[in-house]
Amino acid sequence: MNTQLRADADAILTASIQAVLPDQAVARALQTFVPGSGRTLLVAVGKAAWQMAHAALAVLGRVDDGIVITKYGHLRGELPGLRCREAGHPVPDAQSFAATEEALTLVRGLTEQDTVVFLLSGGGSALLEKPLLPAEELQDITRQLLACGADIVQMNTVRKRLSAVKGGRFGLACAPAKVFAVVLSDILGDPPAMIASGPVSPDPSTCTEARAIAAQYGLRLSPTARALLDQETPKALDNVTLQITGSVRTLCAAAASQCQALGYEPVLLTDRLCCQAREAGSFLASILHSHAGQGRKLAFVAGGETVVRLTGTGLGGRNQELALAAAPELDGLPGVALFSVGSDGTDGPTDAAGGYVDGETMQALRAAGLEVPTVLAQNDAYHALQAVGGLVITGPTGTNVNDVAVGLVQG
Amino acid sequence: MNTQLRADADAILTASIQAVLPDQAVARALQTFVPGSGRTLLVAVGKAAWQMAHAALAVLGRVDDGIVITKYGHLRGELPGLRCREAGHPVPDAQSFAATEEALTLVRGLTEQDTVVFLLSGGGSALLEKPLLPAEELQDITRQLLACGADIVQMNTVRKRLSAVKGGRFGLACAPAKVFAVVLSDILGDPPAMIASGPVSPDPSTCTEARAIAAQYGLRLSPTARALLDQETPKALDNVTLQITGSVRTLCAAAASQCQALGYEPVLLTDRLCCQAREAGSFLASILHSHAGQGRKLAFVAGGETVVRLTGTGLGGRNQELALAAAPELDGLPGVALFSVGSDGTDGPTDAAGGYVDGETMQALRAAGLEVPTVLAQNDAYHALQAVGGLVITGPTGTNVNDVAVGLVQG
Repeated sequence: MNTQLRADADAILTASIQAVLPDQAVARALQTFVPGSGRTLLVAVGKAAWQMAHAALAVLGRVDDGIVITKYGHLRGELPGLRCREAGHPVPDAQSFAATEEALTLVRGLTEQDTVVFLLSGGGSALLEKPLLPAEELQDITRQLLACGADIVQMNTVRKRLSAVKGGRFGLACAPAKVFAVVLSDILGDPPAMIASGPVSPDPSTCTEARAIAAQYGLRLSPTARALLDQETPKALDNVTLQITGSVRTLCAAAASQCQALGYEPVLLTDRLCCQAREAGSFLASILHSHAGQGRKLAFVAGGETVVRLTGTGLGGRNQELALAAAPELDGLPGVALFSVGSDGTDGPTDAAGGYVDGETMQALRAAGLEVPTVLAQNDAYHALQAVGGLVITGPTGTNVNDVAVGLVQG
Repeated sequence: MNTQLRADADAILTASIQAVLPDQAVARALQTFVPGSGRTLLVAVGKAAWQMAHAALAVLGRVDDGIVITKYGHLRGELPGLRCREAGHPVPDAQSFAATEEALTLVRGLTEQDTVVFLLSGGGSALLEKPLLPAEELQDITRQLLACGADIVQMNTVRKRLSAVKGGRFGLACAPAKVFAVVLSDILGDPPAMIASGPVSPDPSTCTEARAIAAQYGLRLSPTARALLDQETPKALDNVTLQITGSVRTLCAAAASQCQALGYEPVLLTDRLCCQAREAGSFLASILHSHAGQGRKLAFVAGGETVVRLTGTGLGGRNQELALAAAPELDGLPGVALFSVGSDGTDGPTDAAGGYVDGETMQALRAAGLEVPTVLAQNDAYHALQAVGGLVITGPTGTNVNDVAVGLVQG
């Protein structure tokens, strides 16, 4: 292994993940926060709600009131001045509905001078929910949509109208108070109206579209449900300021910035990578090979979330598979390395965050009697990388904003 | 379709293919040729031998003597002062051996003042061959190597030693005359010793390696064959100057140059692309998406040769599949386009050179009732692109230096 490159890789991945931890991301977003002259409330929803609220309190000091709604087992203690609630995820339960009702009560009757700091992370769609129909009817409509093959956009177009908080309606419920929203994104491309069904984001979908979907699939709907499809969601929310932070874009930017600090010229390829893991590894390796030994110290950055094609029963994850698949093309090249890591620190069902390979990896694999095509066919990248010291271990990080792969060329 | 982007794409691909046509490539390479004070001979071998020789005569005028050895059906007429021969490919035949003997006779007895202009293109390995064993024995050894799973490098290490012209031996046969070699490459990465088994290139493989391969696989060899494995190939050829031209690297450089002429900032990603076609398309599309609307007019260039995974019985080729697979990610994006073309002008078993897509392609596909995942599963990119005006048609170009894909972002 090239120890200099491995040290650079470790420094880059550590800095990248640091930048998207809820604490740093929230602290950075709140730098631009100016409290109003009235009350300041805090509503935090999602799997990272406790951590985001904890970080916000560190910046804001005490708030006047607030609520944290997170998944069962995700509270880490009391937070001064905040009600802490746990609820069902991925399926909302009675605790979700009760906590959401509590949040709606909190933001009712606020004035223009008041501010709601709204902290949103993945999982919010189930944790913040107040159906405008009996829960059973909502479940039945969801089942019908799934059965007829509706896509996620169509599902959300219908379901936003059956909820009192989705599709911008929670933002509307806060008005006339100002909403300062900070969103930790786990969706590629960061469409705000998609993350947790966009509780504080204007909804681009329309009643006409919702009715067309109901007609297209012949949905069986009660008169109440039909009436709800005709109630428009907010198309503008002047009281809301929304910042997306701690997204895969932040992850990539932090990686690029740390590469630069180490003397590499960073090239951001994409923050929307979504192809097959092993093919992405091959593509990135061919980029590195073409630039190796050309005299430029380069770092190619690609963020996103690749997919694994399962053909075997081995142990691995998409980041480990991406890295391992790059090894053959880099065989024997001096001064090149590639790593790929998941920002949550757990790649697939393993204790590794991802994998690292360089020009010396193939030699080590051969010495261990391992062949890359065989290992990939077994989806067993974990054990192969383990054998050559190519695992990246960070432990669970407490965030989840997709993955980043970085290819280094020493020049 | 975005007509401006399509026009740019057509201009770029036309200029790229022009740059790697044998005529232009040979003319460019011969710009640095200075004839010696003695005789000038010309030896052209490969599928493009006639065209390369024709182009060379246009620059050099008449040569003193020479020979063209190409595949059956590839001669296009007489060439003044040159013997024109056709022979077997991909399996060498008696005509290959006879023509090679003729070439060896031509270069025998030359002096230091003489020059051999040696023009090599793909297919040369079969067309230029003089086995040092009976042809049947050579075939038997090849069969043994194939049966025991030897890789191409191992095959060549053994076979070069059984030939009078491979592994640099034709270059040695020309000495003390100077050899001015021009190679039109069809192999990714352009290793000169690999192209047509490197008749004028020093051979990096050794007798020790050849013997180890024979031992590893327990090859059955005659005493003559065993003795041949002990005869070393040339490790240096001071009389040879070699230029690789018209390779995928030239193709990419020409594409980048034309992009720049049209106002795009070119980014050469790789000239060694070798992953799955549809995954490369997805990766390139995610690069374009991330850079769309950022204010920079960019062109991403990736050369190489992708592979197609056959899952259906439709019509298509790797370039058409790459382009079509990019369409979904570009859906609705203004100012982005991607094309991929084979430099030979025939992508797969079709009359198209490749495919073109932009942000409007998906809308056109939907209007035609076509779904990309279904089309890809059928490997039927040709008909889908045909339906939306996305085929690139150039006709056969007379060269073959792999493919180039270019992604354009208007800014």
